[in-house]
Amino acid sequence: MIQCPRGTRDFLPDEMERRRFYENRLRHTARTFGFRETETPIFEDAELFILRSGTNVLNELYAFEDKGGRQIALRPEMTAPAVRMFVNGMSNDPKPIKIFYFGQCFRYERPQSGRYREFFQFGAEIIGGATPETDAEAIATAAAMIKELGLKDYRIRMGHIGVLRQRIADAGVPKERTAEVLQKLDKKLYDEARPIMADMGVSEEEMEDIFSLTETVGGTEVLDRVPGEAGDWLRQVVAYLEAAGVTDVEIDLGVVRGLDYYTGMVFEAEAPALGAEKQICGGGSYTLSELFGGEKVFSTGFAIGFDRILLALEKEGATYQPEGMDAYVVAVTDDVRIEAAKVVASLRSAGVVADVDIMGRKMAKALKFASSARARYAVIVGAKELEQGSVTLRDMSSGEQELVPIDALVQKIKG
Amino acid sequence: MIQCPRGTRDFLPDEMERRRFYENRLRHTARTFGFRETETPIFEDAELFILRSGTNVLNELYAFEDKGGRQIALRPEMTAPAVRMFVNGMSNDPKPIKIFYFGQCFRYERPQSGRYREFFQFGAEIIGGATPETDAEAIATAAAMIKELGLKDYRIRMGHIGVLRQRIADAGVPKERTAEVLQKLDKKLYDEARPIMADMGVSEEEMEDIFSLTETVGGTEVLDRVPGEAGDWLRQVVAYLEAAGVTDVEIDLGVVRGLDYYTGMVFEAEAPALGAEKQICGGGSYTLSELFGGEKVFSTGFAIGFDRILLALEKEGATYQPEGMDAYVVAVTDDVRIEAAKVVASLRSAGVVADVDIMGRKMAKALKFASSARARYAVIVGAKELEQGSVTLRDMSSGEQELVPIDALVQKIKG
Repeated sequence: MIQCPRGTRDFLPDEMERRRFYENRLRHTARTFGFRETETPIFEDAELFILRSGTNVLNELYAFEDKGGRQIALRPEMTAPAVRMFVNGMSNDPKPIKIFYFGQCFRYERPQSGRYREFFQFGAEIIGGATPETDAEAIATAAAMIKELGLKDYRIRMGHIGVLRQRIADAGVPKERTAEVLQKLDKKLYDEARPIMADMGVSEEEMEDIFSLTETVGGTEVLDRVPGEAGDWLRQVVAYLEAAGVTDVEIDLGVVRGLDYYTGMVFEAEAPALGAEKQICGGGSYTLSELFGGEKVFSTGFAIGFDRILLALEKEGATYQPEGMDAYVVAVTDDVRIEAAKVVASLRSAGVVADVDIMGRKMAKALKFASSARARYAVIVGAKELEQGSVTLRDMSSGEQELVPIDALVQKIKG
Repeated sequence: MIQCPRGTRDFLPDEMERRRFYENRLRHTARTFGFRETETPIFEDAELFILRSGTNVLNELYAFEDKGGRQIALRPEMTAPAVRMFVNGMSNDPKPIKIFYFGQCFRYERPQSGRYREFFQFGAEIIGGATPETDAEAIATAAAMIKELGLKDYRIRMGHIGVLRQRIADAGVPKERTAEVLQKLDKKLYDEARPIMADMGVSEEEMEDIFSLTETVGGTEVLDRVPGEAGDWLRQVVAYLEAAGVTDVEIDLGVVRGLDYYTGMVFEAEAPALGAEKQICGGGSYTLSELFGGEKVFSTGFAIGFDRILLALEKEGATYQPEGMDAYVVAVTDDVRIEAAKVVASLRSAGVVADVDIMGRKMAKALKFASSARARYAVIVGAKELEQGSVTLRDMSSGEQELVPIDALVQKIKG
């Protein structure tokens, strides 16, 4: 029996309905905040992702050569494609450009809880803004999305990659080795960072000072300990976040994010319920467009791990009740099956979600099916009732039945 | 400058909004008809598509080996994945199972008008039904979808592959070469069919009789010329279609459809406006599940070429007007920018689609941006008006302005 490939999933109707419900909540929030939807291809030139993330990304990329000899790759994320799209087709649009997107991404890694080879991201970018308000807008949008989904227990932590970059440079880490150091600090692997930094000539004292900087964590009061322009910037971001009603963002200068292209504010959201794989959202301000052949444009964006956040909701006990259908139409005898088909057609054309037995089933079996399909009503079409222009409407939860004229059926069902 | 790969597209906000609008109309119709949405992975074991379509499919498949040495392929269509999903996870569900799906498919072919390497299909399957009502239900759903999109000029043609298969077998075409002959007949390539069929020992007379069978085209009156059980079957399908209000289906025994797995009724819809690439929908009754390791289950399904049908709508002059946003908030001076942020937050939390200047623009430029963003209103936040708890509401189309208390703003904008 052929299965779906390892690390991928089929979404059956109940699960799919639940996912669409939450996806549409995210979409609704993004729209309300003035973002507009876009879509990019499932695959891109592999080069695009190498430019964004370095050649390391090839290890986990679904990359292959197409029949024309081009190196292409299934997208592992959607920021690079979004920025490429901007460079190709939107660079002259009035700024800021606020876009969002939702779709599949692909990473070849060992599948585990909340980690799939085909996974879903919901992301947003504000392209062309370079103000504290831009950063606040991105975080406020992400926070509103998480709230809109109904997640109760989550933390949003905000840092500033510029602070650490500056501090590391001052301590003597050469520019081309910054990423190497930041990756260790991101994971708080101080013991691994020590020999690397020592090798670069960073003193013990400087190291401890840098490590303690990454441990600058707390409420907005710790902003006093953030030096220079970055401190001023974050204070403004916090002020705009408070104006937007977002008061639960923590400061954490240890939020480093792995990638080179972040320039200033960075943030992450996590759902503690998820344990080790708790990150549900990550983002920050960056420039990427110049790598793809465009002008350098400051942007702020974020991505929400859709599978993870759904898992977090599940762990919190959130349930989704599938909608079912409004009416299921059943013919009492074979000679009125055509009439039953007419009845279901009239319901559907009035926007009633309706179905009809097409299996030639007798009434008892058809009613059983109606029940399994979660129909609110069964519409029982019998020859005798048809003579009076009526059908029997059965309330599937109470079992109560009443005779209803066909031309009053839609109103009765729509209630 | 990196571009999106050949034959793929970026969908910018206006186009994306239009596509989502039509996609949601299709989704709405499918739901109204009792279908439920599902989703399968973007890629599958290549074997799945070879089992469905034969090894020929490899020529146009995006197939590659993953890092684990598995032969995988980007899906070229979604019927095989849907049936695989059914075999894996839905085979015990009450029948009929009515599902639909929408998404990207991939074919490596020369890109041309209405043909892309990454294209979008909307498909539906009724799994487990083997009645004329099942076939009528599939066609009626497809017809309702096409109508719901607003396409005016289209034709739906219905045939029966069983008629032709039987006739060909009777004439002496061996079973294993049926596909070869059907492919020629599908394209009405009679001159190419002749030597092939002669080689199989089919007489001139038999051939002409077969060719004329594929030319059996017309209204339901030509059903009299369809022999045997197939004729009875199609007459019943037509009766149920008429009950569903679908009276414009033509009979065309020349609708062959390329593939082996169709078993009975087959149908196609075309939009003449599209010229040579006019097919917008195709489907029929089939069995596939047994090929994938499941029990043999009769099904009827169809797929709509989403890109093509949108192109047809465009050619008919259908236009879509993007929705724009409800309100764009502008601070008159820098000292009230925080207040402007509060105003936009209150609008958004009331569900108003609203945005705010984050670029530090002066009013004239900010209003120009509001106009380009198609805002219905500008909300102008000034220090003096704020003292009275008010803001200035500007109707962007008329230019009229009025002072509105902040707590009455939502109601005013929502109208």
